Amino acid sequence: MATMKAGVYLAGAKALEIKDVPVPDPAPGEARVKVAACGLCHTDLHYLDHGVPTFKKPPIILGHEPAGHVDAVGAGVTNVKAGQAVLVPAVLTCGECNMCRTGRSNICEKMQMLGNHIDGAFAEYVCVRARDLIPLPAGLDPVLASIVADAVTTAYHAVVHRAQVRAGETVAIFGCGGVGLSAVQFAAIAGAHVIAVDLDAAKLALAKTLGAADTVDAKADPEPAKTIKKKTGGGVDKAMECIGSHKVIPVAHNAIRTGGRLVIVGFADKPVEMSAGKIMFMEQEVVGSLGCRPVDFPRVLSMCASGQYKLEPLVTSRRPLEKVNEAFDELRAGKSVRSVVIPGR
Amino acid sequence: MATMKAGVYLAGAKALEIKDVPVPDPAPGEARVKVAACGLCHTDLHYLDHGVPTFKKPPIILGHEPAGHVDAVGAGVTNVKAGQAVLVPAVLTCGECNMCRTGRSNICEKMQMLGNHIDGAFAEYVCVRARDLIPLPAGLDPVLASIVADAVTTAYHAVVHRAQVRAGETVAIFGCGGVGLSAVQFAAIAGAHVIAVDLDAAKLALAKTLGAADTVDAKADPEPAKTIKKKTGGGVDKAMECIGSHKVIPVAHNAIRTGGRLVIVGFADKPVEMSAGKIMFMEQEVVGSLGCRPVDFPRVLSMCASGQYKLEPLVTSRRPLEKVNEAFDELRAGKSVRSVVIPGR
Amino acid sequence: MATMKAGVYLAGAKALEIKDVPVPDPAPGEARVKVAACGLCHTDLHYLDHGVPTFKKPPIILGHEPAGHVDAVGAGVTNVKAGQAVLVPAVLTCGECNMCRTGRSNICEKMQMLGNHIDGAFAEYVCVRARDLIPLPAGLDPVLASIVADAVTTAYHAVVHRAQVRAGETVAIFGCGGVGLSAVQFAAIAGAHVIAVDLDAAKLALAKTLGAADTVDAKADPEPAKTIKKKTGGGVDKAMECIGSHKVIPVAHNAIRTGGRLVIVGFADKPVEMSAGKIMFMEQEVVGSLGCRPVDFPRVLSMCASGQYKLEPLVTSRRPLEKVNEAFDELRAGKSVRSVVIPGR
Amino acid sequence: MATMKAGVYLAGAKALEIKDVPVPDPAPGEARVKVAACGLCHTDLHYLDHGVPTFKKPPIILGHEPAGHVDAVGAGVTNVKAGQAVLVPAVLTCGECNMCRTGRSNICEKMQMLGNHIDGAFAEYVCVRARDLIPLPAGLDPVLASIVADAVTTAYHAVVHRAQVRAGETVAIFGCGGVGLSAVQFAAIAGAHVIAVDLDAAKLALAKTLGAADTVDAKADPEPAKTIKKKTGGGVDKAMECIGSHKVIPVAHNAIRTGGRLVIVGFADKPVEMSAGKIMFMEQEVVGSLGCRPVDFPRVLSMCASGQYKLEPLVTSRRPLEKVNEAFDELRAGKSVRSVVIPGR
Repeated sequence: MATMKAGVYLAGAKALEIKDVPVPDPAPGEARVKVAACGLCHTDLHYLDHGVPTFKKPPIILGHEPAGHVDAVGAGVTNVKAGQAVLVPAVLTCGECNMCRTGRSNICEKMQMLGNHIDGAFAEYVCVRARDLIPLPAGLDPVLASIVADAVTTAYHAVVHRAQVRAGETVAIFGCGGVGLSAVQFAAIAGAHVIAVDLDAAKLALAKTLGAADTVDAKADPEPAKTIKKKTGGGVDKAMECIGSHKVIPVAHNAIRTGGRLVIVGFADKPVEMSAGKIMFMEQEVVGSLGCRPVDFPRVLSMCASGQYKLEPLVTSRRPLEKVNEAFDELRAGKSVRSVVIPGR
Repeated sequence: MATMKAGVYLAGAKALEIKDVPVPDPAPGEARVKVAACGLCHTDLHYLDHGVPTFKKPPIILGHEPAGHVDAVGAGVTNVKAGQAVLVPAVLTCGECNMCRTGRSNICEKMQMLGNHIDGAFAEYVCVRARDLIPLPAGLDPVLASIVADAVTTAYHAVVHRAQVRAGETVAIFGCGGVGLSAVQFAAIAGAHVIAVDLDAAKLALAKTLGAADTVDAKADPEPAKTIKKKTGGGVDKAMECIGSHKVIPVAHNAIRTGGRLVIVGFADKPVEMSAGKIMFMEQEVVGSLGCRPVDFPRVLSMCASGQYKLEPLVTSRRPLEKVNEAFDELRAGKSVRSVVIPGR
Repeated sequence: MATMKAGVYLAGAKALEIKDVPVPDPAPGEARVKVAACGLCHTDLHYLDHGVPTFKKPPIILGHEPAGHVDAVGAGVTNVKAGQAVLVPAVLTCGECNMCRTGRSNICEKMQMLGNHIDGAFAEYVCVRARDLIPLPAGLDPVLASIVADAVTTAYHAVVHRAQVRAGETVAIFGCGGVGLSAVQFAAIAGAHVIAVDLDAAKLALAKTLGAADTVDAKADPEPAKTIKKKTGGGVDKAMECIGSHKVIPVAHNAIRTGGRLVIVGFADKPVEMSAGKIMFMEQEVVGSLGCRPVDFPRVLSMCASGQYKLEPLVTSRRPLEKVNEAFDELRAGKSVRSVVIPGR
Repeated sequence: MATMKAGVYLAGAKALEIKDVPVPDPAPGEARVKVAACGLCHTDLHYLDHGVPTFKKPPIILGHEPAGHVDAVGAGVTNVKAGQAVLVPAVLTCGECNMCRTGRSNICEKMQMLGNHIDGAFAEYVCVRARDLIPLPAGLDPVLASIVADAVTTAYHAVVHRAQVRAGETVAIFGCGGVGLSAVQFAAIAGAHVIAVDLDAAKLALAKTLGAADTVDAKADPEPAKTIKKKTGGGVDKAMECIGSHKVIPVAHNAIRTGGRLVIVGFADKPVEMSAGKIMFMEQEVVGSLGCRPVDFPRVLSMCASGQYKLEPLVTSRRPLEKVNEAFDELRAGKSVRSVVIPGR
């Protein structure tokens, strides 16, 4: 039986173990993808560092941000074929539940997340339901494209469908990690006046190159919400919290105007003290945003292929799969925007 | 100089003082309305019982839910004339600010609330900007119609514009006071399957007669959210909190489904512990609702005049203006749905 | 090999031929439904009377409005089982195309319509993709429920999703056939002030019992649009054309107000002379409406089961399958609202 | 009495007459603006060439696309003051009607259009209701800014509010005159993939510099809709007709996909043969777009001031007021994008 290298999460471990495991076979309806690269994400750290359990009990291969090439397909698969370069969405959908059928497959009731419900893509191969695989446009490097699977598309969905950013609006984005900088870029593409907020001056500088019209350095400024209100004459139309901090969410809330909207993109595991009276009296909206529908991926990939959206500045480091734990250390230190690991080198 | 009786709030007082005060004269753009009746509201208790300050410093005449007849008009007023039966919206709009100009005059940046920014309608006469006065349809009793000025229209706006209730949806309404029962009635009119929640069995019985398909007695049931989830197979499409309790808002939140919407209609003066992680992961929406645009009043009055909306069951007690403090006691005791006071008897 | 009776459309025929044909076997993913009843529709007359071709070349069994009981299921079917009472939507969806994935499965790019793309349900049995079969609520008569498959749900979709009728709006409905009267009923359920328009006084009388607040007899009134404008002070918020007449569509257009919406529900095979200048200058919206998403069927069936929506008045005649051509004659004569045929009697 | 030069339209005339007329005095609520420049528009040609009557009977000063400086204000005006650089919207609003109060002041029921309902701005001074005057951002040249009053804002409204263009969508724009090229620019700013269509290769070249990703030369290509469908794999998400031609509107209709939207921005004075069956069967939307709300002007001006929207390439010729008829000839010949006239030189 063929084997492959994989980054396996064992119960209670603080790091992945690189192991030889069997190459999986695609079941009916599945495809096997040879992984070109797989991005790292704070969600992975929830398992490793914060004890959030995976749906599939460990041992489980982590990794949910891959692109690669179809290697083999199971019975009944017709939408992709061997050899094709594809993106694998971080979360796969059932196509049958109420959410899938009402155009909200990103909150599919039977979603399967790679590296959570099923084995993920910190490995040479990964097997997934084929229905959600998205062909890569010609000329798009699969290594760069891998981060589209989560960081880029999550931001697209948040900006376009949940914040519903329109040309000429003001948008404040809190947190300039992988998702936050993607949100900066998409909000700018959508024609907004973007104000990026972060503690790290280097990330704010990067935000500027990606389209932010203005920045607020929350390390230097003790009251970023007040500053944003002053800059905008009363608050932004939309604020997006891309961190998941129970302390930052109320700040982002304070930055929006009467009738404005706060989009919660980061996952906060602690309860948040919200002013419901303010939501009511200023008739505001607080909306969640989770992932992205596979049906939106081709649009995003087109935007990447045409150069409208820039992938290159976001992929700040690349390592062989064997060094995945080093990449996690870098992520913990906040030193990279998005790191990817590349199996088989 | 002519005088009139009025219910005046003095700084720090716990009850209104019935005083003789000058009959006010309408300034340019204003009309003077002879009050037929004025409803009482929990908002009044915020001033009397909870120390919430009024925008105009006391002494101030309270009362923001009136109907009556135009008595005199100031210079430049053409939209109403003396003798006409009119409704006075609880909150008057400027017509010039960004909110007014984008169809959100209910959150007018220069709003003037009766009995808060300006003298109110617990009085024989009240002077207000004429632009927002709404003629009453023929045959509609101004005494009954008075509660349309706040309780009824606030619920209309919350159900139609903020909850955006559609035929066939499930809607849970928390709190069956004046606004809550109005919301029950409008959600039923809009074709929803309405589940009313309250601690008071008599109010739930009334909710049933006003269109609730189902009820949950939160006195008997320690876990109303769980019960609602069970009844609906996962949670309601929309929940509306019509109390303003920092304890009830999270319960109402728990009652909505994945992708559902929570509308905050009641004003909560305390911070609320919200699960932002849930809002994000279940991609829910938490939206505020405040008052109602004057432009919507004619529709609501038509619905009242045609009998589609029933005013009579909500006006549960009537008193002369002199007994306004008795009416407040009744409100504090939760014994009435909506009480009105009638000046001049 | 088992045979069954079926109403077969032969190339160029003006009536169906009742023939003995083989009972079909469900392919993988399909279910075989024993038909309890199947409604007749003007769409069937397009094939028989107007030469509109079916997608599947004749011979083809017509009939796309059935309910019945699952009789057998093909490989891989898990959502229904033999014996279960089910509704079969008129149009079946693929679940994979862009439209299905964006919540618009009613315009599925690979839709299969019964009695058009595949054999229909004027037969004792029909085989269909199982994924869109909807269980009937307990207590709902499958014979009555059959018309939910098209006439009722088409109107639900048109009223709720395309007209987006809200409580308090004015809605004019042109044409009181099966779909039109369903639209009257849903618009009334949604809280609208409904004005029904038809040439037939008896249908207008029925419209009144189903919730129309007002009617216009277009036989007696040469200018129904003008009358509606007068009644509403400038035109209705929404008009719905449920006939498909190139002469009526402009009349319905004339009945809407500045900023109003016209929904085209009936299929017009001739070009329509529209005033594009008026659409532009009065900033109106003309939107199409086709069928209904299977995901909405459970809501509609609940509304039928609870009595909120009344099926009984719409099913105005029932015949054995053998008399399907008599039923078509009745439909041509405009004498029935909705006729159903019942196989096996 | 002071006099000024003005371009006056006399009954039946084919050209404007430059006359000396009295300088108007601002009535209460009005401001007098010293005109810096006023753009020319096809709407002016409707009066001069096509016999469309003006609401105010001639003689009337035409011109509805001005910017300038406040010269004097009438009683009660507080929102602007003498000396301030302002934009005058082409259409002034009442602030009181149902449309103004529901956020649709661009279709105000009592709108007053310059050079149509009231004297316009082909003159040294113009008097208008002050409420809709918009201060110009510092640094924005009033001569360039003048075209924001109609051509630019009409396109903004059409793209943002009526087409509701979102990042990643495909948008075809028919007609590359002043409004069409503005629509190209805004759709590109909003993140769309824009396909510009025109008969004039030079205008298509300009469209490319303004953000069009692709063009179709309708002079060379007999079937632009077919070409667009091929380029986009089934049709664009949105098409915008910016000409007002009864022949082009159906072509633009044919260019949209199933479920797509056609926005009618140009005024067509002839009836249009539309396929209502297609609108219904492909569930499309045909929506009108008229002008722009004054409340949106500050956003658009900010986008101009920041350089996000480029005014300079659109203002292709400038003439003194005295040569306004030469400018009209140029417009008739289709040789300019947008011409402005400048009084007082």
